[in-house]
Amino acid sequence: MTAQVFSFALEARDGAARSGVIYTARGEIRTPAFMPVGTAATVKAMMPDSVRETGADILLGNTYHLMLRPGAERIARLGGLHKFMDWQRPILTDSGGFQVMSLSALRKISEDGVKFQSHIDGHAEFLSPERAMEIQRLLGSDIQMVFDECPALPATHAAIEKSMALSMRWAKRSKDAFGEQTDEERAGKACFGIVQGGTFADLRVRSAEALQEIGFDGYAVGGLAVGEPQSAMFETLDATVPHLSQDRPRYLMGVGKPSDIVGAVLRGIDMFDCVLPTRSGRNGQAFTSEGTLNLRNARFAEDAGPLDPACDCPACARSSRAYLHHVVKAGEIIAAMLLTWHNLKFYQDLMQELRQAIFESRVEALALRYKAGENPTSKGESCP
Amino acid sequence: MTAQVFSFALEARDGAARSGVIYTARGEIRTPAFMPVGTAATVKAMMPDSVRETGADILLGNTYHLMLRPGAERIARLGGLHKFMDWQRPILTDSGGFQVMSLSALRKISEDGVKFQSHIDGHAEFLSPERAMEIQRLLGSDIQMVFDECPALPATHAAIEKSMALSMRWAKRSKDAFGEQTDEERAGKACFGIVQGGTFADLRVRSAEALQEIGFDGYAVGGLAVGEPQSAMFETLDATVPHLSQDRPRYLMGVGKPSDIVGAVLRGIDMFDCVLPTRSGRNGQAFTSEGTLNLRNARFAEDAGPLDPACDCPACARSSRAYLHHVVKAGEIIAAMLLTWHNLKFYQDLMQELRQAIFESRVEALALRYKAGENPTSKGESCP
Repeated sequence: MTAQVFSFALEARDGAARSGVIYTARGEIRTPAFMPVGTAATVKAMMPDSVRETGADILLGNTYHLMLRPGAERIARLGGLHKFMDWQRPILTDSGGFQVMSLSALRKISEDGVKFQSHIDGHAEFLSPERAMEIQRLLGSDIQMVFDECPALPATHAAIEKSMALSMRWAKRSKDAFGEQTDEERAGKACFGIVQGGTFADLRVRSAEALQEIGFDGYAVGGLAVGEPQSAMFETLDATVPHLSQDRPRYLMGVGKPSDIVGAVLRGIDMFDCVLPTRSGRNGQAFTSEGTLNLRNARFAEDAGPLDPACDCPACARSSRAYLHHVVKAGEIIAAMLLTWHNLKFYQDLMQELRQAIFESRVEALALRYKAGENPTSKGESCP
Repeated sequence: MTAQVFSFALEARDGAARSGVIYTARGEIRTPAFMPVGTAATVKAMMPDSVRETGADILLGNTYHLMLRPGAERIARLGGLHKFMDWQRPILTDSGGFQVMSLSALRKISEDGVKFQSHIDGHAEFLSPERAMEIQRLLGSDIQMVFDECPALPATHAAIEKSMALSMRWAKRSKDAFGEQTDEERAGKACFGIVQGGTFADLRVRSAEALQEIGFDGYAVGGLAVGEPQSAMFETLDATVPHLSQDRPRYLMGVGKPSDIVGAVLRGIDMFDCVLPTRSGRNGQAFTSEGTLNLRNARFAEDAGPLDPACDCPACARSSRAYLHHVVKAGEIIAAMLLTWHNLKFYQDLMQELRQAIFESRVEALALRYKAGENPTSKGESCP
């Protein structure tokens, strides 16, 4: 179940879609995989056992948030992130690159790295490829992401090209820093590169090739799901994925809605993370087999039926839509707890459905049920 | 386990303290019992299964809150409060008398009842003995409380006497209204009277005698824990309890801190409810075998030890004080979930300890560990 060497075994293909298993020091990850977001060392409103019960094999943690509070060195002194948050299975950490751009104030980017102010207390901070990898080592992350620059879209070809080139130099430095971790520290762990290049196909290809020259354990596609139309995201994947190694996991960062995930799986993506199921749950919204429901809506006030007749999570098995409407309206914490649980279960059930369909060579048919009627990708929903 | 006739069996005595079992249509209640407060059809931040896991036999629901949102008739149409909130064991409901006084605006009290405005939307509402009992019937409450007037303390003897006399007339009307429920509706259920009279011993005695003349399935002591010193509360119990029937359960409403509960058990009280464990949990405070801890305190930032070494709840078994400090500071929902769970477990463990000590004739010795250093009772903590 646990592996001293990080590896990826493809087990089935259906067109470009694929299903397999990632082996890590902390256990196996079935792909395509959805990673719930545990920003501040908690998947919001969920007990760790409950997250596992939904079917999650791996969580995502945020370097940016954890470095600011409670601090990476502190977490290391307390035995690492897994012990700290009571999640013994794999954890992937991002490098902080995205949040530095989206959350912090007074950023100053240089070749060396990024100086910025904490969004919590204005404290001066610094992130670089070396520091981002050091933080991820201190956290004990199983899959560590290179430090990259995430430019806002839309931007010119020249601006994106310059940013991508910087990200590639930072990727090399990140890989080198990962390589300097001890054998014991790296056992069963991985470092992933991140393809940048906006929605420009030529830049994406160059970025993918540059990363593969460096050589990573897996390849992520970053800088998408930042407000562009779903079609632009899919076109970018069409241009990028064929240039990524077949035998390494591919991770589309910060994605997405169910239809985004299905479309990306069809294009050969293996891993996803998104705050949408957890954040929507806290906002009274549920993903169901009957579509997205807003439980705040008065039409649910006397609806004695289950939230989703196709689901067996506690919200569906043990409460009614009327109860959920009541606790959402009353602002009760149980509303966030039940709807988050349900939404995470919905996402994990979708991943299981996709894996099964790939094994049975019917993923295209499954995908028709999720055809995109929800464009564009919603800015700000994709990352915490 | 479930009973068609509500009854109370005393099983052990130790001085004035006693332990027994209350039999109801929805199951047994071991006494002395602590009832977690489920104000708005949820014990805040807890799944119903988790509440049961802490050892709770019975919950308290609030007539005032539920009548305003989602409404008693609505809950009845949805199958009753037990089904609505997914708690199949006994529920005691208060009558709304306390909250009408503490929460609503523009109250107008007459012999008939109380006109008031909802604190949620200003809607005009009315509560009377008959309406309070009707609401409790609609909710399907197992133990229904008479409608009473809760005067603010301090007040003159004359004012409290007048208010108590009104409460006694309302108690008779409440009992009559309960008697008009069908045999099926009342099977295995109970109606409790509430002793009033402030801290005046003579009024408490008269109130206790008036209620016993009417005849109830149990007797509550109301109007305490509203800011008076603990000694005044205990003196009032000393004056009141000897005048309450030995063979009926006795319930001290809205109490309290651990030392309040222990002192009241020594004086012959069988049942308690209080928001303190749940509200404190949401505020970052924990009751532990080492005293009350404020997890917000910086001294816990790197404390790798368990919250309470004497406890086996999820907060204690699976997280550190450092983690709890972090999630409290970050305002994460998991902080409320873990600390509420722990505090409810602490209270239920205390009740179990008291029951055991009564059986073993050593409750006085146990009580020495909880001698009151925490006076006075905190106003506003005692009721939601």
